[in-house]
Amino acid sequence: MRAEQMIATHPHVRGEVNTALARCVEACFDCAQVCASCADACLGEEMVAELVQCIRLNMDCADVCLTSGLIATRRSGGDVPVIEAQLRACELACARCAAECEQHAEKHEHCRICAEACRECERACRDALASLPRSSTAAH
Amino acid sequence: MRAEQMIATHPHVRGEVNTALARCVEACFDCAQVCASCADACLGEEMVAELVQCIRLNMDCADVCLTSGLIATRRSGGDVPVIEAQLRACELACARCAAECEQHAEKHEHCRICAEACRECERACRDALASLPRSSTAAH
Amino acid sequence: MRAEQMIATHPHVRGEVNTALARCVEACFDCAQVCASCADACLGEEMVAELVQCIRLNMDCADVCLTSGLIATRRSGGDVPVIEAQLRACELACARCAAECEQHAEKHEHCRICAEACRECERACRDALASLPRSSTAAH
Amino acid sequence: MRAEQMIATHPHVRGEVNTALARCVEACFDCAQVCASCADACLGEEMVAELVQCIRLNMDCADVCLTSGLIATRRSGGDVPVIEAQLRACELACARCAAECEQHAEKHEHCRICAEACRECERACRDALASLPRSSTAAH
Repeated sequence: MRAEQMIATHPHVRGEVNTALARCVEACFDCAQVCASCADACLGEEMVAELVQCIRLNMDCADVCLTSGLIATRRSGGDVPVIEAQLRACELACARCAAECEQHAEKHEHCRICAEACRECERACRDALASLPRSSTAAH
Repeated sequence: MRAEQMIATHPHVRGEVNTALARCVEACFDCAQVCASCADACLGEEMVAELVQCIRLNMDCADVCLTSGLIATRRSGGDVPVIEAQLRACELACARCAAECEQHAEKHEHCRICAEACRECERACRDALASLPRSSTAAH
Repeated sequence: MRAEQMIATHPHVRGEVNTALARCVEACFDCAQVCASCADACLGEEMVAELVQCIRLNMDCADVCLTSGLIATRRSGGDVPVIEAQLRACELACARCAAECEQHAEKHEHCRICAEACRECERACRDALASLPRSSTAAH
Repeated sequence: MRAEQMIATHPHVRGEVNTALARCVEACFDCAQVCASCADACLGEEMVAELVQCIRLNMDCADVCLTSGLIATRRSGGDVPVIEAQLRACELACARCAAECEQHAEKHEHCRICAEACRECERACRDALASLPRSSTAAH
């Protein structure tokens, strides 16, 4: 992906890319694709009934990651509180999905990779949150 | 829309629909459509340069609302913290977009209607949040 | 929803709303919500293994409907071929999902309502397609 | 991204990955991110009024690419016609957006990169379409 390269060309950004945020964008899109793929692979397993909660968390995580990736892509006139709240939701959705996928990681390779992608995205959200200027609004 | 009717048919829900959450789902999808429409109408105005921040907040709000509507639609095995965090992001995105649109409401009818839809969705998120069982995780 | 009301306020549209397209927008968002809800309800059924194909088609249909609703919302400088191609994909995704849901409609009320929403959206796409000015590009 | 790696773990796919389709998935998510970024960068330019059509096509292309990436990710029980119709819409949306961005490529680096990403995704869709088993339904 070329999120960092693109963000660098933004007229308000030139020369001052927030690398943590750019990495978070890429992690979000990657995690969304992996979660959508894991949900579909789980649906193809014979023991699908044991994977129902995994599929649901995959779907939630995919949706939250996509929107988070889009919000973090847009520099949105410095609307830090919305970015913060969305990345916080994303960090949580990734943590939940990872914890569930980890339980199936030995049996299902797709769950193992998905847990990995979710943990990476969780960390990327945390790092991006730490990189943002302090906002008072989003603290609640 | 028929969000409430659909949620009522869910095998885990039958008979115990959370009406505030169902209304929130409908408000989210409605607000997403209105925001996407307002962004496009703003792009068609001659004074587009004055509406740049409005367009950005419209786009953020549309994306956050869509994902929030999907997350709140899914009953997700009781994963309340993710729903909470996502609805909180949505409440905030709606409040920001409404505040911006209200400034253009006299000049642009699309901004007036959009501000209205955002305020409705903001309230619907707040009501849905109040209706959820307390979770400790999402309090942070 | 207020798609038609919003589209009427667009500076390039005033007074000449394409009602079929506006209805299609609302049908797309409605169908997306219903499909997402049906997928989640199917995941909650004991016989989930029999509903795997239904869940997949629900997910596809929800995604295609959301994007179609957004594309049809934007008047996009008259870019008719893209709207056409997207609405054609939507008409097809709805027809497939409806055909599958109809097979489970007697057993599962959520599938019955979902089939209904998909058929409505399929028709709304067809009517919207018929209402568009002829484009040569999209004929292929 | 790890679309190909994930698709390889799908229980119905093991050992027979359609590489063209996997590449198309990655191109779709990449192009969606780039288009969302280009729309936001265009909104930040002083001559935003000249970039209105570019912003609209960016938004359409981003939405169509995201859904196409999700549809192509899901192996959907062999529902080839829906994948075909969606990839055809995507090929077209990318071509339109590329043609517009190419006109601004000398002035705006974000448009230059975006045109590149759109052309790559257009090709990836075409290659993926050629790799699919023939379907009669989607030919119309």
